[in-house]
Amino acid sequence: MGRVIKVISLKHFFVLSMALNVSLILRAINQDNRAPMAVQKGINAAQMTFLSFPLLSSPTAATPATQPLGQNGRERVINLDHGDPTMYEKYWKQMGDKATIVIPGWQSMSYFSDVKNLCWFLEPEFAKQIVRVHKVVGNALTEGRHIVVGTGSSQLFSAALYALAPQDASNPISVVSAAPYYSCYPLMTDSIKSGLHKWAGDAKVFNKDEPYIELVTSPNNPDGFIRHSMVNRTGGILVHDLAYYWPQYTPISSPADNDLTLFTVSKITGHAGMRIGWALVKDVEVAKKMTKFIELNTIGVSKDSQIRAAKVLEVVSDSCEQAGGSEHVESFFHFSHALMTERWRMLREAVKRSGIFSLPEFSSAHCNFFDNKLGSQPAFAWLKCDGDDVDDCESFLRRHKILTRGGKHFGVSPKYVRISMMDREETYDLFIQRLSQIRS
Amino acid sequence: MGRVIKVISLKHFFVLSMALNVSLILRAINQDNRAPMAVQKGINAAQMTFLSFPLLSSPTAATPATQPLGQNGRERVINLDHGDPTMYEKYWKQMGDKATIVIPGWQSMSYFSDVKNLCWFLEPEFAKQIVRVHKVVGNALTEGRHIVVGTGSSQLFSAALYALAPQDASNPISVVSAAPYYSCYPLMTDSIKSGLHKWAGDAKVFNKDEPYIELVTSPNNPDGFIRHSMVNRTGGILVHDLAYYWPQYTPISSPADNDLTLFTVSKITGHAGMRIGWALVKDVEVAKKMTKFIELNTIGVSKDSQIRAAKVLEVVSDSCEQAGGSEHVESFFHFSHALMTERWRMLREAVKRSGIFSLPEFSSAHCNFFDNKLGSQPAFAWLKCDGDDVDDCESFLRRHKILTRGGKHFGVSPKYVRISMMDREETYDLFIQRLSQIRS
Repeated sequence: MGRVIKVISLKHFFVLSMALNVSLILRAINQDNRAPMAVQKGINAAQMTFLSFPLLSSPTAATPATQPLGQNGRERVINLDHGDPTMYEKYWKQMGDKATIVIPGWQSMSYFSDVKNLCWFLEPEFAKQIVRVHKVVGNALTEGRHIVVGTGSSQLFSAALYALAPQDASNPISVVSAAPYYSCYPLMTDSIKSGLHKWAGDAKVFNKDEPYIELVTSPNNPDGFIRHSMVNRTGGILVHDLAYYWPQYTPISSPADNDLTLFTVSKITGHAGMRIGWALVKDVEVAKKMTKFIELNTIGVSKDSQIRAAKVLEVVSDSCEQAGGSEHVESFFHFSHALMTERWRMLREAVKRSGIFSLPEFSSAHCNFFDNKLGSQPAFAWLKCDGDDVDDCESFLRRHKILTRGGKHFGVSPKYVRISMMDREETYDLFIQRLSQIRS
Repeated sequence: MGRVIKVISLKHFFVLSMALNVSLILRAINQDNRAPMAVQKGINAAQMTFLSFPLLSSPTAATPATQPLGQNGRERVINLDHGDPTMYEKYWKQMGDKATIVIPGWQSMSYFSDVKNLCWFLEPEFAKQIVRVHKVVGNALTEGRHIVVGTGSSQLFSAALYALAPQDASNPISVVSAAPYYSCYPLMTDSIKSGLHKWAGDAKVFNKDEPYIELVTSPNNPDGFIRHSMVNRTGGILVHDLAYYWPQYTPISSPADNDLTLFTVSKITGHAGMRIGWALVKDVEVAKKMTKFIELNTIGVSKDSQIRAAKVLEVVSDSCEQAGGSEHVESFFHFSHALMTERWRMLREAVKRSGIFSLPEFSSAHCNFFDNKLGSQPAFAWLKCDGDDVDDCESFLRRHKILTRGGKHFGVSPKYVRISMMDREETYDLFIQRLSQIRS
């Protein structure tokens, strides 16, 4: 009996030891690959020097925004100008190895992913997980749609303009969106002075009697409101950007049923570094032209990131289906919804305390996903400096070392700024603390 | 003693069992991610239906080109139109887990890779391995250069045009390249009718007294010759595309020392599915503008693929440094050079046998990397149909179910075709077999 115990102990010892080895080997391989990462070093985007993405350089940015004071004893810069969705890291750390991917050196070498598919560079497993997550969440119809994958939804935006603009027109087609519109739309539309399309500004005042493409962002970036076409006539070509139509940001009232809808992994799961988006496209010819654009632009889309995106979406869908069961899994949207709720509560409290700012108010609506009446809690806060003495809210906040993106970039008054709600916890907490102390 | 042996056996058993488990777990995770892959199914690019990448649709393509006859008993289509570099899979299989990458779900989430770098989306480890591989191979100077990463070199090509074209000129700048030129250049230059640049054809006949950008591809795609600027005057802006300036294709005579040079992982290691390329750029302002273009186009480049590219280049450099040592490692370039040598030997023999084709002849030169006098063995064969009765070599070969890309796409006579030399062994062998049998 003593020997049996001894052998069992040895057995257990080896099993444990090997399990540990597995974990260590995985870590070693991984760290080997990723050594000098900004994230690992704790470098924050506030340290940008040349960086002008997507619009603004930040010359005052110097040190990580994790503590109120920098090494030089001066107040740290809090950069909430761009929407880097790092707040989701926490969830993925909780999930441990569930979303880990392993790719051997000899896999995914070819340009081709699925030569039978119209979009020949779309990984079949990724396509499968896109259909599944839309079904689980109920935010978009996928039946009768072609899926086109893109290097982020930015590339799909350009691909959509290319596909929808008439190729033989004497003048470029007008591209409009209701102000406040996403600040990158004008820049992306006109970046290389295309003869196919040109930016024509605010959809609400567009009145030319000619064809046009209208971009409908819903919930809207920057202000978070649900939107529909705003041009005061019919016959426009619509592109729906539904990057934020997910349960953590807004109630899911019905599945989207548009001609051309754009989504991006970045704003769902937080994996912005993958640069993966997709389009759901009704018209086969439009889908073919979008595919053609991506061929000419980048000859396809990273397979490695598509494989990873498939895994991440799979874990999200699994978490929704398993939540509440015996495995004690937290649904991804439960986690992210709770986080956004808390952040908006803190923000509204800070704004109230300061007395010089205001925020949009959203009415509640039934969310089919949560089966509950819920409010909106957008990925960006659209803050207004109310006082008559502040004309430029962006400059005003910059004096307090809070970097935001001012209203003029979105086609409206500089009294507004857009603030990212998606940064890491320490940055967000510091922001709330500083905002609460601002007086006019 | 008997007990000791028993315990040792148990110990060994568990070690072996766990080692097996590790391998199985890795495989399981991986297959889980990658289930319905075209490559795994053995589907060949010859099965394309809608596919028009990069130029030609192939309506006759139907079944894998691994056997002479398809399931219907008819001759299989051999598609060597595009340069899918799948022949390198064999090397990476030999390397086992050396180039495997593991990425946990919570890593590489941010948009940012290195906020202190001009190119803020460039992974530092990838930058390090680019510098290292150029040093090991001796094919390009990296000192005093800025590295800009792109989604393949296609995106960097567009970024270079954007950065080099005057922004305020009344007319788009002319873009030229000596014929035969890479067939995608005209399409990529004019894809969205840019007001910044326009395709102006063959550099050898360009004689307008105005600024121009000249693309110098060396070794040249399609014909494999080493090239220099061909416009008959000075003052042009040069972009060097050195995708094929690696030892398996051509002797490395000296490190490239240009203002702006493009490289791509696809043609070095065969990992086309990563969509990763890089530019070495002397002028800081040009590098900044290229970075800006990629921001507007795709807000950066897949981190996952950059991490993988870093690993693959590391294994290549390691293999060069360790080759001939006690570890019995085969240098990647030794492997690939031997493969290309054998393929060109087979091709020249088949061409000789047929009596109706001809190929370019290359003079030998000293290769600094191999320290030997060597010939060229390009990634594409530039085949000519010699007979007076064949005007269109592409159509002629298509009748024999060999898909190639005809001379007209490269700005020259249709008596020429470009044939990929980089496909899998079974496809290549079948091609040689069929070519040998063709008579006029």
